[in-house]
This record gives sequence, structure tokens and C-alpha cells, in this order.
Amino acid sequence: MPIKEKSKPAKRDRVTIRTVAAHAGVSVAAVSKVMRNAYGVSENLRAKVTGSIEELGYRPSRTARGLRGRTFTIGLLLVDIRNPFLPEVIDGVNGVLAPSHYQAMIGVGEGRMQLETSLIESMIDYKMDGLILVAPRLPTEIIAEFAAQVPIVAVGYHDPKAKTFDTVNTDDQRGAEIAVEALLKCGYRDIEMLSLGAREGHKVSVVRQREIGYRRAMLRAGLGSSAPISHIPVHSPKREEAMRVFLARSDRPRGVFCWSDLDAITLLSAAAEMGVRIPEDLAVVGYDNSTTAALSLVNLASIDQSGRELGEAATRTLLSRIEGRSDPEHLLLMPSLVNRKSLI
Amino acid sequence: MPIKEKSKPAKRDRVTIRTVAAHAGVSVAAVSKVMRNAYGVSENLRAKVTGSIEELGYRPSRTARGLRGRTFTIGLLLVDIRNPFLPEVIDGVNGVLAPSHYQAMIGVGEGRMQLETSLIESMIDYKMDGLILVAPRLPTEIIAEFAAQVPIVAVGYHDPKAKTFDTVNTDDQRGAEIAVEALLKCGYRDIEMLSLGAREGHKVSVVRQREIGYRRAMLRAGLGSSAPISHIPVHSPKREEAMRVFLARSDRPRGVFCWSDLDAITLLSAAAEMGVRIPEDLAVVGYDNSTTAALSLVNLASIDQSGRELGEAATRTLLSRIEGRSDPEHLLLMPSLVNRKSLI
Repeated sequence: MPIKEKSKPAKRDRVTIRTVAAHAGVSVAAVSKVMRNAYGVSENLRAKVTGSIEELGYRPSRTARGLRGRTFTIGLLLVDIRNPFLPEVIDGVNGVLAPSHYQAMIGVGEGRMQLETSLIESMIDYKMDGLILVAPRLPTEIIAEFAAQVPIVAVGYHDPKAKTFDTVNTDDQRGAEIAVEALLKCGYRDIEMLSLGAREGHKVSVVRQREIGYRRAMLRAGLGSSAPISHIPVHSPKREEAMRVFLARSDRPRGVFCWSDLDAITLLSAAAEMGVRIPEDLAVVGYDNSTTAALSLVNLASIDQSGRELGEAATRTLLSRIEGRSDPEHLLLMPSLVNRKSLI
Repeated sequence: MPIKEKSKPAKRDRVTIRTVAAHAGVSVAAVSKVMRNAYGVSENLRAKVTGSIEELGYRPSRTARGLRGRTFTIGLLLVDIRNPFLPEVIDGVNGVLAPSHYQAMIGVGEGRMQLETSLIESMIDYKMDGLILVAPRLPTEIIAEFAAQVPIVAVGYHDPKAKTFDTVNTDDQRGAEIAVEALLKCGYRDIEMLSLGAREGHKVSVVRQREIGYRRAMLRAGLGSSAPISHIPVHSPKREEAMRVFLARSDRPRGVFCWSDLDAITLLSAAAEMGVRIPEDLAVVGYDNSTTAALSLVNLASIDQSGRELGEAATRTLLSRIEGRSDPEHLLLMPSLVNRKSLI
């Protein structure tokens, strides 16, 4: 257990960015550049400044940074904390931030517009340098209003025409098509989509995109007249009950494309309880390729949208906007199928 | 989709806590009391103030609140984001905060002391009203140093002698004893503990406490001379490899107590791949009673430490400290066994 140095806090108070610059024999601007891991910093400069920071035990106050115009903190707004896709996104964000002196502070909006708004306003009040909003429920006009105050990148939010903020997504339409194509290739033609019910009257952006992709792939296969979509309630226990009702249906389809692993795994579990064999009685493809889907006990085929890559791309996009870019960027990454026992 | 009212932001700027107080015909202090959901606020006062807040569209700036001494934000430091126990804690925190005007901002320390320190310093710089630290890696001296600057409650951190901060825990020693007693009751005497490899591990940590409980229960059963503990590496792929090595051992025990569902579920998955039958060849008890453990596909017996109750108790404890309590509180909640197929 490290012993606290009694003199450290006092020493810490005296060390400022100017002390570091003087110690390293460089300008204050150069220290700032190293701290935000800016483009074009030489290895030599980085080594000198990092050495001085460590030697002096420099720990800048975020508030002081804020007064200088930079807090080196970005805000990350998550829709919830249970979707197993989100830890991947956070890992991606932290992975890009780690070599810089930036850190992330997280708010959980729980899909409630009022809470999302309040958290975003706090992040702006706290002078965070930029925000990543993951699957926000807010309409584009409101996000644009916030984007006038702080750099914003939205993830899992399809708005390719947004002018004042960036978006980073996987191609959710294409992901759904890939899922349907995989089911068709295995010989299933009686395919239904299990989608997410509306929350506060809004349909989540990525969910809507996946429904479009599902319908298009079914249409292309000549099954457009029968491309049913069932909507699963958001909350327990209605959610689990809807799964059981679905599994007990006499006209239950032969294959299911489920909008998220979160619901697909609950479906597999209900199937195990009810003696519905996977895939012999029902083939299932999920979405997210979550850690749980990969467990051999679960073995769920799933569309991989690489949350880590999304988090990385969003962070790089945000940092470039913080550095001054104002032209919008709208990235679309390609999803892929990870095949497992629930399909074959 | 709600249409943005063009006039709203301007209107919002003019409404302050004084405007609300005047509109409601009460004092500024009374408005503040309602906003922090303080003890002793009458229903009548709450209704009046809440009505005025809504009617005026009052949205106080967190920074302005900070200047007045209260930001109505608490910081929540998590050790990681993947442990399925943590969403329960967050739900508990948000459940208690929801009826107040407080909100939580989350930092993820990844079990790294330097990152934990930096996040806590930021939360203090941001003038957050109090901090809940979940399973922090920092030694008690450092936490005490921070506790001199901001109210702190530590969760999953056993330090009943701490004077300047509170702790909220389940009785992790007792939890481990309950797990061992359940295995013994099923007739298993050849029991091993799968524990977490040292990661800057302190005595205060839940893992060490569970090891103490495991050893004590084994000793009490006359098995003290053979109470082996294996330590599982923290990171992939060494973690999964260690599971396979464990399962392939010729002297593999008949029962396993695993420090966390996180590792117990990985163990069950490796067992399924290797054809080790659960519980016929190996009985397993996990810890946390996570959502995944409850899936019928997983069916893992587990010690329930009710993360939600921990989060609720921690939040109530923190709020009472923010309200001025200075005597330390150290709560110990009782865990219980949730029996499932991996044991019986």
C-alpha cells in the first residue's frame, strides 16, 4: 500500500502549466499540445514534457483548464447501462483517450428526454470540451441547438444531413439485410423481426433503420407481402411475457431476426424453458455480437457492429472537431455476421 | 417530434431561483430544500415549488448552483463497466436520486489508481456535492484526503474504522461462508475457491473479504488444512486459459466457490466446451446473482448481494452526509444464496 507523502498536496498546488513549461524548457502552448495529444507533436517534445509532468507531479485543476478554455474532459451520454453493446463503445472511447490527457465522464439518460437534456446541460455547464451522445432520444433540432454550444458527435443516431454535429454509425440497414440473407441462405423463408417498442412515442433511430433493412431484404427475396414485425415492450416483466406469447404462437415463424442481443438472449432463455429447440424449431439471429452471445452456453448468431470501433471512430471524430473542424462528418461502418449455433 | 420554441432559451436565461421563489411565494431556501428533496419538506410546499418550476420552465445552471455551494450532482466512480453487478448499483443510485433534483455523473476508473485519482480530482474540481466510490483501488489514506474536500461514501470497500468517510457493503465474509455452507450441505467436501488475481489488491477489497470467509467456513467444517484458493488472471485471454487449465486438472475439486459471476459464467462456458457436466462433475456457486446468472441457459447458483439495495443505501448515506452529518456510518447488508441448477 503506497504511503501518502505528507508534502505532496502542498507541492502539487504550486506546480502549474507554466512550471512544467519552464522545467521542460518549452512554451506553455507546447505543453498544452502534448497534453491533448495533438497532431504533429514530436517524440522528443512528448518525452521532455511528459518527463517534467511526472517529475514535478503536475496535476492541473480541471477548473483552471476550463478558464483557459480546455477542460480535457469529454462527456459521454449513454442511453442505458444494461445493453451489453455499450461497454464495447466505452472501451473504444477510453482506448483513444488513454494516450492523451483527456478523460471521459459518463451520464446515463435512461432513454428519457428530460434526463438526457439535463445531463447534456450539465456537461455544457461543466465546460466539457465535447460530447459523444450514444443513441440519444432527442430530436435533431434540439441536438443542433446544443451543438451550437459544444462540439457533438452522435453515435447510433442516423442523421446524415446534420450540419452542425457529426454522426458515427454502422450501416444498420445493411446489418439487418445481412441477418435476413443469412436466414434465407439456411433455407428459412418464414422470417419475422422482433423489434423494439416505441419509448416516449419515438422509435429509436437504429431500430427504425434495422426495420427498413429487414423489409428491403424480405422484399428482394420475394417475401415483401409477408415481412411481419413484432414489437417487444421495453420493460420487464411485460418484455419476458411477450417473448413467451411469441414462442407459444401457433403461427410462430421458422426464423427470427431480433433487433438486439439484449432481447435475443432473453428469447433463447424463454425458449429453453419452454422446450423450443434452437435452431431445430426456431433459428435466431441477434444484433451486437455481445460478450454474452459469444458464450458457448448461449451461442447466438449475431450481427457484429463492433462497438469498440464505433467508440474509437466517434472519439477521433470528436477530437478533430474540438481541434477546430467545422465541416460535418458522417461515418458509416460496415457490420458483419458472426455465425453460431442459433442459426446453423 | 416536439417543435422547439424559438423563444424558450431566452426565457430560460431570465428565470433564476429567485424568480421561482417569488412566483411560489416562498423563500429561496425553501426552493433549494425542495430541489434537493430535503427531509421535512411538506407536500404543500413541494407542490407549490414544483408547480412554479414547471410553469416557469426553470432550469438552473449547474455552474451557478456551484457558486451558491450546491451543484445537485453527485459523482459515481465505478471500478469497471463490465461487471454485471454494477448496473444494479447504478439503478439503486438513480432510483433514490430520481425524486430529487440531483443527478449522477459517472467515471470509470478501470481499477487503475492514477485514473481513479484523476477522475476524483475532476469531480471535486467540478464542485460535485458528493462522491460514491464503488470498489476503489485507492488506499484509505488517500480516500481520507479526498474526504476532507468532499463528502464520500465507499461501496465494496471494507474500512469500518474510517472516520471521515462512510462505507456501505454487504457482508462479503458472510457471503462466502454461505456459499461454502451450501456446497457442504449438498455433500461436497472437496471445495476450491476461484479468486481474483491481485490487481493492486488491498485487504479492504471485497475479494480479500470473500477469501477470509471461505477459509473460515472451511476451517469450521474441519477442512481448514485443505482450503485451496486459485487466482484467476484479470485479463483475456489468460483468464480463459486459466479456466481451461483448471477444468483439465486431474485433481480438480468437486465443488467451486467463485468470487464473482463474471468468472463463474466464463467457467461454465468453458465447462460446456470441454464436456464437464455442471453440477454432475463440478458444482459451482458464483457471487452477485447477476442477470446473466439467472438466464435459464446459464442457471448459476449465486450469492445475492443486492446491488440495487447497496446503491440505494449508499445514496441515502451520501445525501445525509451532504446535509451535514459528520459522524461516520458503516453499513453492512446481509447477502443470501439464490439456488440454481449449477449447485443442485
